[in-house]
Amino acid sequence: MSNIKDRVMDLYPSRVNDYPEILKRKDPVIYSKDPAAGPLDAEQINFYQKNGYLLFERFFSEEEVRELRNELKRLWDANQDSDAKEVIREPESREIRSIFAVHRNSETYKQLSQNRRLTDIVKQILGSDVYIHQSRINYKKGFSGKEFYWHSDFETWHVEDGMPRMRALSCSITLEDNYHFNGPLMLIPGSHQYFISCVGKTPENHYQQSLRRQEYGVPDQDSLTLLVKKHGIDSLTGPAGSVVLFDCNLMHGSNSNITPLPRSNVFFVYNSVENKLVEPFSGQAPRPEFIASREQ
Amino acid sequence: MSNIKDRVMDLYPSRVNDYPEILKRKDPVIYSKDPAAGPLDAEQINFYQKNGYLLFERFFSEEEVRELRNELKRLWDANQDSDAKEVIREPESREIRSIFAVHRNSETYKQLSQNRRLTDIVKQILGSDVYIHQSRINYKKGFSGKEFYWHSDFETWHVEDGMPRMRALSCSITLEDNYHFNGPLMLIPGSHQYFISCVGKTPENHYQQSLRRQEYGVPDQDSLTLLVKKHGIDSLTGPAGSVVLFDCNLMHGSNSNITPLPRSNVFFVYNSVENKLVEPFSGQAPRPEFIASREQ
Repeated sequence: MSNIKDRVMDLYPSRVNDYPEILKRKDPVIYSKDPAAGPLDAEQINFYQKNGYLLFERFFSEEEVRELRNELKRLWDANQDSDAKEVIREPESREIRSIFAVHRNSETYKQLSQNRRLTDIVKQILGSDVYIHQSRINYKKGFSGKEFYWHSDFETWHVEDGMPRMRALSCSITLEDNYHFNGPLMLIPGSHQYFISCVGKTPENHYQQSLRRQEYGVPDQDSLTLLVKKHGIDSLTGPAGSVVLFDCNLMHGSNSNITPLPRSNVFFVYNSVENKLVEPFSGQAPRPEFIASREQ
Repeated sequence: MSNIKDRVMDLYPSRVNDYPEILKRKDPVIYSKDPAAGPLDAEQINFYQKNGYLLFERFFSEEEVRELRNELKRLWDANQDSDAKEVIREPESREIRSIFAVHRNSETYKQLSQNRRLTDIVKQILGSDVYIHQSRINYKKGFSGKEFYWHSDFETWHVEDGMPRMRALSCSITLEDNYHFNGPLMLIPGSHQYFISCVGKTPENHYQQSLRRQEYGVPDQDSLTLLVKKHGIDSLTGPAGSVVLFDCNLMHGSNSNITPLPRSNVFFVYNSVENKLVEPFSGQAPRPEFIASREQ
């Protein structure tokens, strides 16, 4: 357990009370000291500041997407019978749901994570050098793709990984066309300005379950209803090769996908080197390296 | 089991083979002998003929919707602890999913099912007098609304209820605003021209499970992929009080709904009096009256 000193320093307490709470964000959204330096222009910076995300349609060319998709398929085939801890399967079958740490275990995705066009934008937002906190590919198959319930990534990274401040962002690269009807990413724009302190306590080794189905660190229905009433929901559609950058504390999720159209993507989390991990605020052991990198 | 004579007369065999098959529709879509008589105009008739559905935005006024929604809530409250067979609960909880036979058990919905503006359109399409084959309300709650997998209603009504021909239609009346993101009805336009003969055999008393979760009469993935490649998917959005009419054989379904916004609706199936039920084509006992009316 955390001692009193740790608890006092926890700006974003969660899973400590038996009632939920909405706290104001205590960190900047845009960290760059000279936002005008680019590559994002003032309009994009303002959009990100206000809404907590940016969508770049066709950020990657069709040829680049083809290569990324080939690698996706290669990893799918190669890991069918794998017992590697990085391979996460669906809750009710052996089907692969995600593969973690692809920025280490795949040369293609390693290069992708270091793509300069991408990282220059990330560095502008976070105002420092960055490193990969987490990476994964999500296979959201057709017909049976399951929902991801609403969550703030930061809530988990803070409680379970010890990420101290909101100075990280997620980058999702779509490898398939995203439509309204195949379970696209849904965001609550503006929700990054609030921290929903969740109810309950985290069990030990929670991650072994939570990567398949989240049960702790789940925001309460009243807080979600308030956020949606105030800010609405944006559901992000666009062709393969589009990129979404979103703040680590933006509330997001997705519905199931019964259509024949899959919705696979690559997911990188960039964290500022000024925001390196400390002990988890849950007071428990940190999650393993393949989920939350402590090397920079 | 059906004898050979019955089998020969079965124009739409399903759940009899261990392989799926796509058959051409053998029935008209528009039955009216004088379609120009209205109330639908030629453009609407042609749209229905081609796509298998029609959407009428704001068919009912806000005041009418308010009354229908009050009755929805009254039935929800009144049936919380009910053991009535008409009350169907979610597969993994006691939460009410649907209530059947509301055109008999609720005065409000009985009147709604007889609404002249509605039934005049239905009679024009089906070219005869009509009666209610099935009615229900669906409570698609926020946060945890589950998906309905792809299906043709006719497939079930034919196999399990003995509906001989494609001369019926479904009418869904939305009691909440439908957005892209709260699990709206998805249709494969044009799919009503094909009959997907499904694999497998129907267990006895299948309906007790299938109303909660469908496992038989499920179209195969290859056929669905072909239909979607050819015809795409329309997902129907619009304000509360909108009406969708769709052909009994149109392939449809819906994704889950994790948003706080519920998506309840009222559902009436109108069948032509010229198309009355015979023995189920499964050769098994017919489903009970509250699911498939045999009185006209």
